[in-house]
Amino acid sequence: MTSLAGATQDEVRRSNLALVLTMLHRHGPRSRSQIVASTGLNRSTVGDLVSELVALGLARESAGVGQGVGRPSLVVEPVAGAAVVVALDIRVERSVASLYGLGGELLARHERRHHQPSFTTLVRHVAELTQRVLARAPAGAAWVGTGVGVPGVVRTEDGLVRFAPNLGWVDVPLGNDLSEALSQRSGWSPPLQVRNDADLGARAEHLRGSGRGADTLVFLTGDIGIGGGMLVDGRPLTGAGGYGGEFGHMRVNPRGIICRCGARGCWETEIGRLALMRNAGVDEDTEVGVLLQEAESGNRQAMAAIERVAGWLGVGLANLVNIVNPQVVVLGGHLHHVYAVAGPRVDREVGRALTAAREQVRVTVTDLGGDATLIGAGELAFASLLEDPVGILAACERAS
Amino acid sequence: MTSLAGATQDEVRRSNLALVLTMLHRHGPRSRSQIVASTGLNRSTVGDLVSELVALGLARESAGVGQGVGRPSLVVEPVAGAAVVVALDIRVERSVASLYGLGGELLARHERRHHQPSFTTLVRHVAELTQRVLARAPAGAAWVGTGVGVPGVVRTEDGLVRFAPNLGWVDVPLGNDLSEALSQRSGWSPPLQVRNDADLGARAEHLRGSGRGADTLVFLTGDIGIGGGMLVDGRPLTGAGGYGGEFGHMRVNPRGIICRCGARGCWETEIGRLALMRNAGVDEDTEVGVLLQEAESGNRQAMAAIERVAGWLGVGLANLVNIVNPQVVVLGGHLHHVYAVAGPRVDREVGRALTAAREQVRVTVTDLGGDATLIGAGELAFASLLEDPVGILAACERAS
Repeated sequence: MTSLAGATQDEVRRSNLALVLTMLHRHGPRSRSQIVASTGLNRSTVGDLVSELVALGLARESAGVGQGVGRPSLVVEPVAGAAVVVALDIRVERSVASLYGLGGELLARHERRHHQPSFTTLVRHVAELTQRVLARAPAGAAWVGTGVGVPGVVRTEDGLVRFAPNLGWVDVPLGNDLSEALSQRSGWSPPLQVRNDADLGARAEHLRGSGRGADTLVFLTGDIGIGGGMLVDGRPLTGAGGYGGEFGHMRVNPRGIICRCGARGCWETEIGRLALMRNAGVDEDTEVGVLLQEAESGNRQAMAAIERVAGWLGVGLANLVNIVNPQVVVLGGHLHHVYAVAGPRVDREVGRALTAAREQVRVTVTDLGGDATLIGAGELAFASLLEDPVGILAACERAS
Repeated sequence: MTSLAGATQDEVRRSNLALVLTMLHRHGPRSRSQIVASTGLNRSTVGDLVSELVALGLARESAGVGQGVGRPSLVVEPVAGAAVVVALDIRVERSVASLYGLGGELLARHERRHHQPSFTTLVRHVAELTQRVLARAPAGAAWVGTGVGVPGVVRTEDGLVRFAPNLGWVDVPLGNDLSEALSQRSGWSPPLQVRNDADLGARAEHLRGSGRGADTLVFLTGDIGIGGGMLVDGRPLTGAGGYGGEFGHMRVNPRGIICRCGARGCWETEIGRLALMRNAGVDEDTEVGVLLQEAESGNRQAMAAIERVAGWLGVGLANLVNIVNPQVVVLGGHLHHVYAVAGPRVDREVGRALTAAREQVRVTVTDLGGDATLIGAGELAFASLLEDPVGILAACERAS
């Protein structure tokens, strides 16, 4: 229950400013009339809010493309160079950094491959990547936040990585150490937030990907490990401590093999990249693309390997459909390709979920390329600006 | 994002009234000072709100038990007889009706056993039960709502039961037909809402049971079928269409038996009441209590049967811990007894969940007896009064 007792005029104005800025950031340029229509605010309030955003430098107005007679209507658009965020995606084999401007425009992207670096080395590499992308920020841009994705279980409050088996990390202070490294290099750094990579992927698919418009969504991405993220009613479902969404460790096969987590028959052991290679009887470092090509050119063993993964993929998805009743399931990583090649096998198993939940769900693949985590990290980093543009810009000015 | 644009003085007052009434209903009598402390409202606002609740007949003030010198402090308490709800729990072998007063006081309870009644007969029985409990309502009490639990998958909007295998129902219009039957008998009936029984159980455990204080909670109850409900951040997680929480149809054993839903190896086939009897090699109508006694008096086959169910219970719970990261798991029905007898076996399997999520979770048993669904149905029926006391009381007065 929300008490409105404390809502003053000023809070109402700030909240409306946030509403309009968020709309411009998420949905792009629109006329004042469109803003009036979609916010329910009156025309003069919208006029005041737009003027304030223009004065803050966060929006500009320009003549839109006229579609009739009379005055050309003005279009309000976000200014990409006014505020930027750094998005970081730490993966097993490389790290990627992006710089996004307000409105979600990609301003710079760099990556660096690595092979089992120490934690200290990795922090240094990531700090260097951050400097490289920040060097591309437009003059006068406010750096308002940093978002980081890692393939592991993260304590949200301080970015401690509790467990990231594929990086070999247990209780590693990524949030603190990276924040410190960035501050040292730049003399200052805005708040940095660390999250599980697939939780960020779910956020990205919801806001800008295949799951746009779906408020209840499951995102599942495959690499060596299986990453999972979930939104319910538009909000991330991460559980009591932020450790939810570990779909990969759902035990589906009591006669399966032992997982890296110590349990037997985890979903990950049946649908992870290594399972694909094990099923096909090829070296575990084989590229997924090579196996797919083999299957498509008629190699029956390759096809059988993919079909087996597709079957287990469907079994676990049916479980998630029964448990969560999502509108959309978005598949990324190699699961994207497994679905492209053996979709019917997946669908058949999903079809064994209970009718009511199953008939609502749409299983689809990511349309964000490999960048769902990065985009989600960027959106996370923009969140505080979108909630309180005046306060955050003032804080950045004071600090930098 | 919530826009506060429309918050008028009147809305603020109504929202605060709701806040204070909800507190009295959930937590019982308290002094004005305690209300001031827990709402953050100032003393004069609280005074006005209490006066308004007293004028509406929903609260009364009386001298509390003094604990010191000086004026005895006044205690504000909810008036149970001011507003009542009917709670209905439709089970496979019987239906139960309760009448609850404001504050959650049980005013009447009746039940009726049945054996595979037709839908029409069942609706008539439940309408009769409702009349019987309503006859016990204090003079002048406003009947403000009816909540109904069923062991099945329910479409929330209109109470259509999509699938209730143990009642043999598919797409049965329980909400409409029962609402009509109640209106005919009483000349009028307030809004009636139907939900899955375990979703209501989760609500009850959160508000008044073993899960009190836990905002992220899984409730699991066992009978022939397995019912599951889940709250995340204090809100029911029911998914896109309200069909989530069907934990019983999570497939855990690919070599298991075929479930009534058609899939193989559903959790329900390993932990349902029939699994217990099948494992023990006894007739499937055997009472759970009999089997428990056998086990406790040293019958090794009975104990092995319970241990096997306990193991599978733990496997599925570990999955839910990995997926949802709850603070508390509350077990009801025969799972309550399985846990009481073979808790260590359950805990051992739950211990295979990932460390971060596992170390936070508390597995416990219901302390609401068999009434979790009824209590949850009552709370559901009270929700609209608690949100808008003035509006709902006025509507009841106009209608009745």
